[in-house]
Amino acid sequence: MRVGIFDSGVGGLTVLGAIRKLFPQVDIVYLGDTARVPYGNRSPETVVRYSLECADFLLGRDIDVLVVACNTASSYSLDALSEFSDVPVVGVVEPGVKEALRHTEGRVGVIGTRATVKSGSYQRLLRSFGAQVFAKSCPLFVPLVEEGLLEGEITERVARMYLEELKGKIDTLILGCTHYPLLKPVIRKVLDGIHIVDSSEAVAKELLDIVEDEGSGATELFFTDNYQNLEEIIERILPYQKLSVNFNKALFP
Amino acid sequence: MRVGIFDSGVGGLTVLGAIRKLFPQVDIVYLGDTARVPYGNRSPETVVRYSLECADFLLGRDIDVLVVACNTASSYSLDALSEFSDVPVVGVVEPGVKEALRHTEGRVGVIGTRATVKSGSYQRLLRSFGAQVFAKSCPLFVPLVEEGLLEGEITERVARMYLEELKGKIDTLILGCTHYPLLKPVIRKVLDGIHIVDSSEAVAKELLDIVEDEGSGATELFFTDNYQNLEEIIERILPYQKLSVNFNKALFP
Repeated sequence: MRVGIFDSGVGGLTVLGAIRKLFPQVDIVYLGDTARVPYGNRSPETVVRYSLECADFLLGRDIDVLVVACNTASSYSLDALSEFSDVPVVGVVEPGVKEALRHTEGRVGVIGTRATVKSGSYQRLLRSFGAQVFAKSCPLFVPLVEEGLLEGEITERVARMYLEELKGKIDTLILGCTHYPLLKPVIRKVLDGIHIVDSSEAVAKELLDIVEDEGSGATELFFTDNYQNLEEIIERILPYQKLSVNFNKALFP
Repeated sequence: MRVGIFDSGVGGLTVLGAIRKLFPQVDIVYLGDTARVPYGNRSPETVVRYSLECADFLLGRDIDVLVVACNTASSYSLDALSEFSDVPVVGVVEPGVKEALRHTEGRVGVIGTRATVKSGSYQRLLRSFGAQVFAKSCPLFVPLVEEGLLEGEITERVARMYLEELKGKIDTLILGCTHYPLLKPVIRKVLDGIHIVDSSEAVAKELLDIVEDEGSGATELFFTDNYQNLEEIIERILPYQKLSVNFNKALFP
């Protein structure tokens, strides 16, 4: 079987890593839209348009399931993608929420990009299950990760600036952005004792019902642009993976 | 006369502000490519392609001069744009360098995005005039400005992290990114006593030889996408301007 994954950039590689862990044998093809990253600041219409273009590329590569690793795309484009796609479409929001509901006693925090939080996708689903929700956008987290500042005074201060207001209000926190798992240690420091839900692991578990672990175990990576420090970031996110990296810079001319 | 300005996003509004100050009467049309901002992390080929598309839009609006407000686009696309355009093309690099040379005793610092610094455009030109150059990319500065953190402990620490190594080495610093003028107070704190060159003012002065100040004084703004906190950022960059803001989200379908 072949799993297609797309993301606005490199963050979705955390989802790829989690899927590979549970499915050593499937073929995986990943598309990162590095020519137009980040989606987190775009309008809903633009996010949907970009998502459909990414899906179109992957569906043309004979995939059996389409994983939307990007939280912003999952928040805005899932309906459009499901209509467009002839294979099952799995986003990160629903699996993340399900996993949070397994752990929470009723008060869940969600952090993500401006667009993800503004979409209200996590909040709506969580509230429909009776949870109290506290959402907060953390726009500086992605640039901090991409700059390699995974710990230290600056990152801790930024984390405190964003997260202090959640203290005492929540028992579970959903990391609603693929970059955020890399900040787990810092987030834990600020929000001590809170259960943290990593959507990338949740989405991998979700695939257990859909995907059989058979194939050649190949991993193919495509990017719409050669991000300046792309290789360094890939190494940071997937440090133990051996991957065949295939750059294609002109996918969306 | 009508001045066309393009930028990868909203940062170029600092250039618009500087031009408007010197030319109260000209018509100005501004295009911010907010659907694909930031250019600072893209490959040279992609930056050139995006720049030509922006120029094409403005040239279709009957401009008399094309100002490339984006430092990354100025660094990579000026040759392609000059060939493409039938009106004069003015980037920000050359005016910034000229202004720096008027003040320096020979040791100039340049800060900008990863792409601008990597392009070496400022460094080459400065060195060709015999200056010693120290360049440093500051990828977190743009997200900090867009998050409204123009001062305070976090921004100061980030500024120190990037700029401390320039201390004692330079007498003049070029702000090679349109967002950076908003961080001038913090930069001054870290690099005390150093002459700071704001490229946006330099490019406005450059136009004195090309543009006559006549027209209706109208300002039109176009954006390729409705950036999430766009209006708030416009207000931050151009607080005293009354502008007719024209959103067009589907310029590059």
